[in-house]
Amino acid sequence: SETKKLLILPGDGIGPEIMREVARIMAWMSRARGINFDITEDLVGGASLAVHGVPIRQEVIDEARAADAVLFGSVGDPKWASAGFDRRPEIAILKLRQELGLFANLRPAKVFDALADASTLKPEVVRGLDIMIVRETVGGIYFGEPRGIETLPDGSRRGINTEVYTTPEIERVARVAFDLARKRDNRVCSVEKCNVMESGLLWKEVVTDLHAREYADVELTHMLADNCAMQLVRNPRQFDVIVTGNLFGDLLSDLASMLTGSLGMLPSATLGAVDANGRRPALYEPIHGSAPDIAGKGQANPLAQILSFAMLLRYSFNMLEDAAMIETAVANVLANGLRTPDIMSPGMAVVGTEVMGEAVVREL
Amino acid sequence: SETKKLLILPGDGIGPEIMREVARIMAWMSRARGINFDITEDLVGGASLAVHGVPIRQEVIDEARAADAVLFGSVGDPKWASAGFDRRPEIAILKLRQELGLFANLRPAKVFDALADASTLKPEVVRGLDIMIVRETVGGIYFGEPRGIETLPDGSRRGINTEVYTTPEIERVARVAFDLARKRDNRVCSVEKCNVMESGLLWKEVVTDLHAREYADVELTHMLADNCAMQLVRNPRQFDVIVTGNLFGDLLSDLASMLTGSLGMLPSATLGAVDANGRRPALYEPIHGSAPDIAGKGQANPLAQILSFAMLLRYSFNMLEDAAMIETAVANVLANGLRTPDIMSPGMAVVGTEVMGEAVVREL
Ligand SMILES: CC(C)[C@H](C(=O)O)[C@@H](O)C(=O)O
Ligand SMILES: CC(C)[C@H](C(=O)O)[C@@H](O)C(=O)O
Repeated sequence: SETKKLLILPGDGIGPEIMREVARIMAWMSRARGINFDITEDLVGGASLAVHGVPIRQEVIDEARAADAVLFGSVGDPKWASAGFDRRPEIAILKLRQELGLFANLRPAKVFDALADASTLKPEVVRGLDIMIVRETVGGIYFGEPRGIETLPDGSRRGINTEVYTTPEIERVARVAFDLARKRDNRVCSVEKCNVMESGLLWKEVVTDLHAREYADVELTHMLADNCAMQLVRNPRQFDVIVTGNLFGDLLSDLASMLTGSLGMLPSATLGAVDANGRRPALYEPIHGSAPDIAGKGQANPLAQILSFAMLLRYSFNMLEDAAMIETAVANVLANGLRTPDIMSPGMAVVGTEVMGEAVVREL
Repeated sequence: SETKKLLILPGDGIGPEIMREVARIMAWMSRARGINFDITEDLVGGASLAVHGVPIRQEVIDEARAADAVLFGSVGDPKWASAGFDRRPEIAILKLRQELGLFANLRPAKVFDALADASTLKPEVVRGLDIMIVRETVGGIYFGEPRGIETLPDGSRRGINTEVYTTPEIERVARVAFDLARKRDNRVCSVEKCNVMESGLLWKEVVTDLHAREYADVELTHMLADNCAMQLVRNPRQFDVIVTGNLFGDLLSDLASMLTGSLGMLPSATLGAVDANGRRPALYEPIHGSAPDIAGKGQANPLAQILSFAMLLRYSFNMLEDAAMIETAVANVLANGLRTPDIMSPGMAVVGTEVMGEAVVREL
C-alpha cells in the first residue's frame, strides 16, 4: 500500500504528553495490523516561539502541505501571553488553516454513555447527545480586511475588523454540512444573524439556494445565532448538523462541547478542498487547550487526542474499520471504569495519561 | 412631584397582552400610592408595519426622546419574515437604541429560588445564580460601515459587515459595568476575542487602562468569548458582572438567560448617557420575544414585563422602594405556587396572563 504521510505537531502544554499516547496506538497498528505511517514531527506555538522566535515556520507549513494529514496537539502558553499580537502561539493554527485552505472545521459534540453524568446539564437533557457542528474556518471576521487599530486625530483609537463572506465560501462549507448530514440524521440547521448582518443574510440565501438545487432530500432549518446559543442549552438534542461561520462557530462549538461535560474526550477535524489529484488537506486536533496548569504532570486525558487520530484514519485514509476499533476501545476503557482526573467521578478508578493510553491499546 | 413621562410600546405578539398587566400595576400605584405617570402609547414592529408601512416612525423616536423612559414589549412577527432587510420588525429596537444612544444593555440572569428546577442545568449548578451582563448596544458589527451585499464581476456575491469600536465607546460601557459591580459583588469580567480580533485587543486594553485609572478597587478579569460561552455552562456562578461588545453580548446574554430556565421571568434595561440636564434616556424590555405562537391566547407570562417596569422605577426614577415592592410581590406569587404554562412544574397551579397579573397586584 502507498505510504501514509503524517505531520505531527504536538505544540504546547499537555500536547507532547498526550501525543505520546497516540504514538503508542500507532506502534500497535504497526505490530498488529502491519500499518505504518511516514512521520514528520515539528514545533508550533510557544514551543516554536522559544526555539525559532515565531509561532510557526514556513517550513512547517510546507511539511503540512506535503503530508496527507496533520495531527495537531494544542497551542497556547502563558509565557507568551504578552508577546504581542504578531507572536501569539494561536497564529500557528490560524496560519495552518489559511495556508492549507482548511475551511471546514468538524466539531462533534457527543456524550459518551459512561460520562452522561459529567455534564452540568441534567442527564435526561444530554444523554445520547450527538451533534456535529461544521464551522467555516478560513473566512469571516477572522481574516477579513481592513483590520487593525488606528489612532484618530483627537488621540483616541479605533479597532476595526471586517466580516466578509462570498457565495463560493458559503457554498463549499454548506456542502460539507449537507454531505455529512446524509450520513447522519439528514438534518442541517444553518446559523447566522440575518436580522442584523448582511453577511448573515447572504449566508442564509446561499445555503437556501444550494439546498433547493442539490440537497432537497436533507431537512434544512435556519436559526439566529443568539437563539442557537439558547436552544443548545434548552434542548440540545434537537440538532443534528449545525453549519455556521467562523466567529459564531467558535462560540457555539465550544458551548456545545461543554454540554458533554468532558472536553478531554472531544476530537475535531478541519478539512480543505479536494485537489485535482484527489488529495484533501486535513488537520486533526483535540478541542481542549494546552492546559498549562497540568502540563508535564502525567495527568492529562489523552482520549481526545487519540480520538482525533481515529478521525484522521476515517476522513483522510478511509480506514473506517481501524477508526471504529479505536473508538470502541476508548468506549470500553471508559465502561471499565478508568478515568483521568478531568472526568473522574465517584466509584471510578483514577489513572494518569500513560495508564489510560496503555489501557486503550490493551482493549485493541 | 414632577410628571413622569413614559412611552409605552407594546409591539407584536404577546407584547400588548403582557403590557396590560403592567397597566394593572400602574393603576394600583395610582390608587394606593398616589403615583401617576404621563403615558403615551404607540406602535412599533409588525404592528407599525401593518398600519404605517415602516417598523418605527420618526414620531415614535421623537416621543421616546421626550419621555423619561420607554417601556417596550417585543417585536417580531412571522407575517413580516420575508418583508426584506429594510422592513424587519427588529429595526424598531435597533433604531431606538441608536437614535437615543442607548449604549448599555443590562441583562440580569437570575435564578428565582422557586424556579431553580426549571433550568436544564443541575439545580446545584444554578441555584442562587445572579449574573449581570452589560452589553454594548450602539456600536460594533451591528452598526459599523461599510456593510451590505455586493455583486462581484464574476456574478458571485459578497456580504460585508464591519466591527468598529473606539476608545470612548468602550470606556463608557465599561464604566457602567464597573459602577454596577460596586453595588454588587465588585467583580467584572471583560469578554472579547483579542486573540483573533484587533477590535477585541483594543477593547481589552481600554478596559484595563480605565480599571487602573479609576476602578482599581473592583476585581477585573478578562476572558475570551468562546471560553466565556463554555464557562457559563460549566460554572456560571463564577461570574458577577460581565461586560462585552454588541455581538458577543447578544449570544452570551441569551445563553446566560437560558441557564435560568425561565426566559419569561427576565427583564432588561438599556441606558444612554446622562445629558447636561441630568436626564438619561432609557428603555426597558423583557428579554423574551413576541412569541407569536401563543399570542392572544391569554397564556403569556407577564412577569418579565412587570419586572422590566420595576427596573424602570429603579433606574429611571430612583424609586427603589416601589421597585423592590414589585419584585417581592413577584417572588411571593411564585412562592405561592402560581405558574404560567412556560414555567409550570408538577404540583403548581397553572394560571393565565391576567390571573398572574392580578395575583401580583394582590400581593402588593
Ligand atoms: C486558538 C484560537 C485562535 C481558535 C479560534 O478562535 O478559532 C480556537 O479557539 C479554536 O476554536 O480553534
Ligand atoms: C431583535 C434583535 C435585533 C436583537 C439583537 O440582536 O440585538 C435581540 O436579539 C436582542 O438581543 O435584543
